[in-house]
Amino acid sequence: MKAVRLHEYHRQPVVEQVPEPRATGPFDVVVKIGGAGVCRTDLHIIEQQWAEKSGVRLPYTIGHENAGWVHEIGPGVSTVEVGDTVILHPTPTCGLCHACRAGDDMHCENSAFPGIDCDGGMAEYLLTSARACIKLDRGTEPADVAALADAGITAYHAVRKAVPLLYPGTVCVVNGAGGLGHIGIQSLRALTATTVVVVDRNPEALKLAEQLGADETVLADGAQVEAVLDLTAGHGAEVVLDFVAEQGAQQDAFAMTRRGGSHFVIGYGGNLDIPAIDLISTERTVVGNLVGTYNDLVELMVLAQAGRVTLHTRKYPLDAALDALADLDAGRVRGRAILTP
Amino acid sequence: MKAVRLHEYHRQPVVEQVPEPRATGPFDVVVKIGGAGVCRTDLHIIEQQWAEKSGVRLPYTIGHENAGWVHEIGPGVSTVEVGDTVILHPTPTCGLCHACRAGDDMHCENSAFPGIDCDGGMAEYLLTSARACIKLDRGTEPADVAALADAGITAYHAVRKAVPLLYPGTVCVVNGAGGLGHIGIQSLRALTATTVVVVDRNPEALKLAEQLGADETVLADGAQVEAVLDLTAGHGAEVVLDFVAEQGAQQDAFAMTRRGGSHFVIGYGGNLDIPAIDLISTERTVVGNLVGTYNDLVELMVLAQAGRVTLHTRKYPLDAALDALADLDAGRVRGRAILTP
Amino acid sequence: MKAVRLHEYHRQPVVEQVPEPRATGPFDVVVKIGGAGVCRTDLHIIEQQWAEKSGVRLPYTIGHENAGWVHEIGPGVSTVEVGDTVILHPTPTCGLCHACRAGDDMHCENSAFPGIDCDGGMAEYLLTSARACIKLDRGTEPADVAALADAGITAYHAVRKAVPLLYPGTVCVVNGAGGLGHIGIQSLRALTATTVVVVDRNPEALKLAEQLGADETVLADGAQVEAVLDLTAGHGAEVVLDFVAEQGAQQDAFAMTRRGGSHFVIGYGGNLDIPAIDLISTERTVVGNLVGTYNDLVELMVLAQAGRVTLHTRKYPLDAALDALADLDAGRVRGRAILTP
Amino acid sequence: MKAVRLHEYHRQPVVEQVPEPRATGPFDVVVKIGGAGVCRTDLHIIEQQWAEKSGVRLPYTIGHENAGWVHEIGPGVSTVEVGDTVILHPTPTCGLCHACRAGDDMHCENSAFPGIDCDGGMAEYLLTSARACIKLDRGTEPADVAALADAGITAYHAVRKAVPLLYPGTVCVVNGAGGLGHIGIQSLRALTATTVVVVDRNPEALKLAEQLGADETVLADGAQVEAVLDLTAGHGAEVVLDFVAEQGAQQDAFAMTRRGGSHFVIGYGGNLDIPAIDLISTERTVVGNLVGTYNDLVELMVLAQAGRVTLHTRKYPLDAALDALADLDAGRVRGRAILTP
Repeated sequence: MKAVRLHEYHRQPVVEQVPEPRATGPFDVVVKIGGAGVCRTDLHIIEQQWAEKSGVRLPYTIGHENAGWVHEIGPGVSTVEVGDTVILHPTPTCGLCHACRAGDDMHCENSAFPGIDCDGGMAEYLLTSARACIKLDRGTEPADVAALADAGITAYHAVRKAVPLLYPGTVCVVNGAGGLGHIGIQSLRALTATTVVVVDRNPEALKLAEQLGADETVLADGAQVEAVLDLTAGHGAEVVLDFVAEQGAQQDAFAMTRRGGSHFVIGYGGNLDIPAIDLISTERTVVGNLVGTYNDLVELMVLAQAGRVTLHTRKYPLDAALDALADLDAGRVRGRAILTP
Repeated sequence: MKAVRLHEYHRQPVVEQVPEPRATGPFDVVVKIGGAGVCRTDLHIIEQQWAEKSGVRLPYTIGHENAGWVHEIGPGVSTVEVGDTVILHPTPTCGLCHACRAGDDMHCENSAFPGIDCDGGMAEYLLTSARACIKLDRGTEPADVAALADAGITAYHAVRKAVPLLYPGTVCVVNGAGGLGHIGIQSLRALTATTVVVVDRNPEALKLAEQLGADETVLADGAQVEAVLDLTAGHGAEVVLDFVAEQGAQQDAFAMTRRGGSHFVIGYGGNLDIPAIDLISTERTVVGNLVGTYNDLVELMVLAQAGRVTLHTRKYPLDAALDALADLDAGRVRGRAILTP
Repeated sequence: MKAVRLHEYHRQPVVEQVPEPRATGPFDVVVKIGGAGVCRTDLHIIEQQWAEKSGVRLPYTIGHENAGWVHEIGPGVSTVEVGDTVILHPTPTCGLCHACRAGDDMHCENSAFPGIDCDGGMAEYLLTSARACIKLDRGTEPADVAALADAGITAYHAVRKAVPLLYPGTVCVVNGAGGLGHIGIQSLRALTATTVVVVDRNPEALKLAEQLGADETVLADGAQVEAVLDLTAGHGAEVVLDFVAEQGAQQDAFAMTRRGGSHFVIGYGGNLDIPAIDLISTERTVVGNLVGTYNDLVELMVLAQAGRVTLHTRKYPLDAALDALADLDAGRVRGRAILTP
Repeated sequence: MKAVRLHEYHRQPVVEQVPEPRATGPFDVVVKIGGAGVCRTDLHIIEQQWAEKSGVRLPYTIGHENAGWVHEIGPGVSTVEVGDTVILHPTPTCGLCHACRAGDDMHCENSAFPGIDCDGGMAEYLLTSARACIKLDRGTEPADVAALADAGITAYHAVRKAVPLLYPGTVCVVNGAGGLGHIGIQSLRALTATTVVVVDRNPEALKLAEQLGADETVLADGAQVEAVLDLTAGHGAEVVLDFVAEQGAQQDAFAMTRRGGSHFVIGYGGNLDIPAIDLISTERTVVGNLVGTYNDLVELMVLAQAGRVTLHTRKYPLDAALDALADLDAGRVRGRAILTP
């Protein structure tokens, strides 16, 4: 089969032939990929940012945002059948460790993360497990929803954690209205009655944000912190969801957070540098966020199938993977780029 | 009356005569001070660390950790009477803003903070309000419990926030076993069944920690992060309570925190510098902590009166305030120094 | 002034002249009533259901759902001024007991409940306290929002407690779409993405429910439990909000609740009779609900002023109070009857 | 092998020969039983109380509280090996439904409950799954800990749910100090600093309760509700854990619960009959409780292995199963009866 393989850091991946995976373990599932999302993390992988953390051996197939159809199942699989349409939680987990038993999928002690630390979904077929499969209505087109498998779940998970803080009368800043941010806005609209203030340096992203339900938009032209303080009587926001967290956005995001408020870090790339006295004298919390749980994705699919979360996607054939990566890197993608093998 | 007054930053306060405060407002309470704690924050005030944040005008009376006897009450006060023994919550709050109505005293929009932004308790009398007074058994000696009014409540508040994370089988690191830390250890013992690991660079502090119920102690000799990782099968602790947060301890504290874990910042002085990728790839949370609520102090007094939290104090007459400050600065105080006007 | 006074249980109240109240205590506030809601609880008071619980001495003025304009303030009041438009939390609380300090207004140990245990708001003026006043925009008409002061806050409070249980994919049954229920439906729509199923025996109430955003409606014609089970694949609902709780509705509500689900009791009049084995073998929870907190009402006013919660009211002059009570008793009121003194 | 089999309701089970179970599915585990607890629920099964709820077909083997050694494993099992000492969570769950994915084992949509709805552990061998096994230190004697597998986890689970309500200064009533209650007392001591008041009609059970850390004991001689009210300044307890819930104890337990408090129902047999007005005017909550999660049992084993929860057991050979049931029924068992096949 064809797959998008990274052979060397700081060089482009190549599209090449590799053997198809097989379902050999009792809970293995091989999925024929219908849509594989292209993510800023793929660029960061190529740039070697994840090399040490993932420990992956090159070459390998990237792609950690996948949906498709069940192609082959192991003998113990009872929850999906060959032919089922599925979206995949990013990490096939063990189901047996303390974290799994608490529903905390991302902290499974024995999980793999296809596309990060083993072969991923920018390919015709992907090996995963029954625990990663969420069965969808037969009519769902995998390429239409694949972006929910990573961008979507990540934005939703952060919003879900923030919900108890976002009672009516509060303000939530969405810092960055790109692939994740625009799902974050819609999730906030669905789950809360908070006032949503969206900050971005791209005026077109702000226009989309308004259409998706932002109450206020702020152009990140250098005075964005002051603008947010002005909108909040000088206090800042109860919650700031920082989908950027690089190039100083992470410092701005903290500065936009109110006394007693919470700064959710979802993007990455920059360093947070905070005097402890600033943390303690205002009692703010900084919350790291990593993808989400299987049930988060189930819930997000409910919102998606009810039309409450919609995606802007641009599709590319698998052979055009490098074009998709280049378009993303150059800021030419509105919403999410999806490979359709 | 006599009071310990700061006239100029970076110079020692002076003990001098000032007029006694009077209870003029309906909820005013004047307290005859029985014990006024001496805190590292007093040193930081003198060093001008709080000048901008507090906006206080010099000269003023320091001392933000107080207990004593009710001396005079305003006409609307019904909860305490002249002669009652009281410990004082540090901030007389308004009781009417959103934060107060949610029980979130430290984020009152209209509170004063005697000893920080107005005249404090290193004096014969202190002006506060009915909302700050917690009535104690008549037999309680104010000087014996005053340290609970700031050091105690601050440590207890952080532990209280951490309790839901500290189920049996977890590990909690107490970073720093000084004035706050030793109350933190006892609060953890009273409220959880977690394994308590105490880190300090002072072997005598570690001995005291063991007596107070620490399960493990680690000498902070440069290899303390590795030692904590060794004690936790390489994972780190579910919760790290950092009572130091300066001179690099804050970075160690983050490094000791497990995937999905929480790093509580209670001390201050240093800067936290964390790559966003480290926060998100492990989904850790950094929690700022500021003193505590009125009810926190009520609860802590329950533990104290049951003998489950005990204090090590050293008493000085008010005239010896400068000696107490000097002893604290030089590391010559075990437990807490208390002025007894 | 004129007031609606109950002189004897099981007899109609009378509209008669009484002295105006005065603001004598430091935090007293006298409000000129602009709107006083008429509630089923007023009927229950007349029927003597509350006599033992409230311990009120007759005669007294009823009316526990009030809004108006500040008429006179005590010397310690700083948060409202004469002339301000206000809606009133039902219970002027002490602000000093453990419950108040935790934001738990309804469990204040020293509160009064005007209209229940002392003179209420079916009068030209009402004596309350600064702690009960929520200042509104000058343009707000008290009679338009008064129903939020008791019916509204009660429905909202129950919804607010249920929010953490109502993630996407869940079902919430609203049992009874009358005065409280129709605010409950709108609050659910604003705060959650749950599927809302409304049950009522009145087809017109169900029509209104649909307009307010109900996903499904069920006519309570005797087969309502089966209908809810059918809509939920035989499982029942994660949450049932029972705004009726009399004449068997309370038993139905429990029967509509799923394994692990929660049955919120908001109405009253009937007895709950549940075998303990049914509670434990399914691990259901039964949640009593009483009005709500001051902050609940603040939040609800945010929703109301954003147009997300709207009220259906019918206004009566104070002199027509008995007509209003009779109309309510006979089921002739759509939404809420409001007296406008 | 030998097994204790129920052939007919309202008649004693018989000890007879049946075929040994085999591990045929990928995650099957056959455990050689070292200890099988005898529970009041076994009596209730014989009395036909569970017949309709469980739908079990007779004859079958009872026993739902088991520990032993792994005897045979299916091909997909990686977490335990033959020879491992294990304690068993009562329900082998699917690991794939929404409840399992949320860590909510007792509400698995596809679980079995050996000893309730299929063959249980009063036998030489038991068929369960890898998901039910908790590996213990090799030196642990299964018969010494078996009682934690059902009585223990059930008491612990209720306490764990109550912990957030039980801050210092609160009171928790333990109603019934038998097999479950005495574990409840110890769990409260380990996890909270609440004041523990134990109610029982047996003076010897109260003596044991005192040794285990009860702060107060109350003899249930008819005046137990008044006694609890007297101990709580007339308010009642923030939490009542009712381990009895039959013969009127369930009504007493509700009456002992404070305004805003929670009544946890753990035992069963009686009916709760509560006027809705009593629930709502005091805003109390009634909480059903069913066994506990896998992680609850893991946590409880941590407490047990640290010596913080100890058990009183009396051992019987498997052949003496009927004696054990008779002794339990007659109130002749202190702590828990354990069969040792």
